[in-house]
Amino acid sequence: MIPQLHHGNGIETPRPAAALAELLADDLTEVERILARTMQSNRPHVAKLVAHLAHYRGKRLRPVLLLLTAQACGGVTNAHHVLAAVVEMIHTATLVHDDILDNASVRRHVSTVNAKWDNSSSVLLGDYLFTHAFHLTATIGDAKACEIIGDATNKVCEGELQQIGERGNLDLSEDDYFRIIDGKTAELTSCCCRLGAMYGDRDDDTIESLARYGRSLGVAFQIADDLLDLVGDERTTGKSLGTDLEQHKLTLPLIWLRDRTTSEQAGRFRQILTSPGNHKREALAPLLTETGALHHARRRAEDFAAQARAELDCLPPSKYRGILEQLTRQVVHRSA
Amino acid sequence: MIPQLHHGNGIETPRPAAALAELLADDLTEVERILARTMQSNRPHVAKLVAHLAHYRGKRLRPVLLLLTAQACGGVTNAHHVLAAVVEMIHTATLVHDDILDNASVRRHVSTVNAKWDNSSSVLLGDYLFTHAFHLTATIGDAKACEIIGDATNKVCEGELQQIGERGNLDLSEDDYFRIIDGKTAELTSCCCRLGAMYGDRDDDTIESLARYGRSLGVAFQIADDLLDLVGDERTTGKSLGTDLEQHKLTLPLIWLRDRTTSEQAGRFRQILTSPGNHKREALAPLLTETGALHHARRRAEDFAAQARAELDCLPPSKYRGILEQLTRQVVHRSA
Repeated sequence: MIPQLHHGNGIETPRPAAALAELLADDLTEVERILARTMQSNRPHVAKLVAHLAHYRGKRLRPVLLLLTAQACGGVTNAHHVLAAVVEMIHTATLVHDDILDNASVRRHVSTVNAKWDNSSSVLLGDYLFTHAFHLTATIGDAKACEIIGDATNKVCEGELQQIGERGNLDLSEDDYFRIIDGKTAELTSCCCRLGAMYGDRDDDTIESLARYGRSLGVAFQIADDLLDLVGDERTTGKSLGTDLEQHKLTLPLIWLRDRTTSEQAGRFRQILTSPGNHKREALAPLLTETGALHHARRRAEDFAAQARAELDCLPPSKYRGILEQLTRQVVHRSA
Repeated sequence: MIPQLHHGNGIETPRPAAALAELLADDLTEVERILARTMQSNRPHVAKLVAHLAHYRGKRLRPVLLLLTAQACGGVTNAHHVLAAVVEMIHTATLVHDDILDNASVRRHVSTVNAKWDNSSSVLLGDYLFTHAFHLTATIGDAKACEIIGDATNKVCEGELQQIGERGNLDLSEDDYFRIIDGKTAELTSCCCRLGAMYGDRDDDTIESLARYGRSLGVAFQIADDLLDLVGDERTTGKSLGTDLEQHKLTLPLIWLRDRTTSEQAGRFRQILTSPGNHKREALAPLLTETGALHHARRRAEDFAAQARAELDCLPPSKYRGILEQLTRQVVHRSA
């Protein structure tokens, strides 16, 4: 399964999907094999839920990051294959639980677990993914890997908890927005790159550089994701959109609109957000475009992508480094 | 904090609470210190939810099992203190998530997290407890401990998933009932005793005996817990009862009633269980008593408790072994 990475910015860079197919095909096949083996169960209800997860298969961004950094740092080992499966399972666990939080009914073009079954199944399936991810990590026999995965997931949960604590807070600061997305998204992408580099032959400075690459890339990715929730196309993204607005979760364009436009525009923003009904996306889109709020947020995402690229100077030129560079553009300019 | 263990069987054994207070006071204080340090957060919503967990503080059965087996096997080390905190966090995580599944509003005399806040906070707080438990495990630097904890939690989740898959199945077999409680409850109590014995100076046979002790004790404990859900007193247990009946989760007395009584009695059982309204507990109690279903289930719990006691023959006589023996009676004959 090769990540489908789409360009939407018109920049003439080669599409990395084909290059990735060639570079990581064997590694990604091995990761899929580990995932299937780890998740299998002979209890019927468990097997049914696990089978449904196959429909959730997305870009496999996190395993790809881990494998690319591993290749760029000296080569992929068996530990990398296992850890690539681990980070995908953790990511999937958070998706399954997020769908409860967002009351989402569609993900990657199919029903969510909570919509098809119920919240109880989603709670336990997410737990099942978490515990199997931790157990799988332990099988490589290195407590340090368990500690890194444990620390990253701690911070993911903290970020998510802060986010729901701030739901409905129309005065959320930009600092708090960045603190939330640093936890809920960037922590895990940073962890992927750290683990990829760790089992290679690179020094500590390189590991820290690549961890920062993963963090900046994750922040850029999340800003772009938040933009899609506001102005993306549900047919293309294949998931319920507008959930941030419905739950009064402020994201970067909204914070900018509130703080840096005329008081009249900011007033319209607050009025739309607090009015009943589910037409907030349609009502806000023109305002977000006219005021430059979307443009500003895209620029911020590009800045983080550029910071990520700068960290790659620690690596010698290689085709892997090339793909890592291209990914920084991909995560910002995408439609799904 | 000393577990409050109550006798309800009239057997003249000394109350172990006082003995535990003396034996484990320093160890349990250290466990509480680790729990507080591990769970602290400077994000306000997280701190608020974590503070609420203090109200959930119960018998600390799992840390007690781990510490007692450790003492009985040569002494408590720092790793035991850490792992005792880990098993309590994992248990608490499952409680927080179970309260979503059961739509429970009261636990240990206070509002559940889902009742006081919402399901979203419960989902994420449970996740936070799981990930912090796994991270804490890793800090002792032994991947084997991570593997044992990971394996046990995998089986806990499988048991819980099987249980919700069987909700509404009035034909649930006794074998499947035991398979469910072996996963959701006995796996973790077994794990506690395994970890307690593992870092002591005992041989593999002793470790396996004590793991079996923990498993049989856990099964006995869960049968007794299921009896309390049917005929316990909410004021004494301090939690919502009757949830198994409301959700058509068949437990041992109900399975026995269905299979081993007259067809008329079994018919009344099915009629009560499938009728609307929430008076199932009151309606079933006389039938469960008359037919001997409660008596039968208590006897089964006592059988498992006796199996657990027999495993303790691997240990030389000591005050710790004495308390482990008493615990097998406590878990069966209790009112909370």
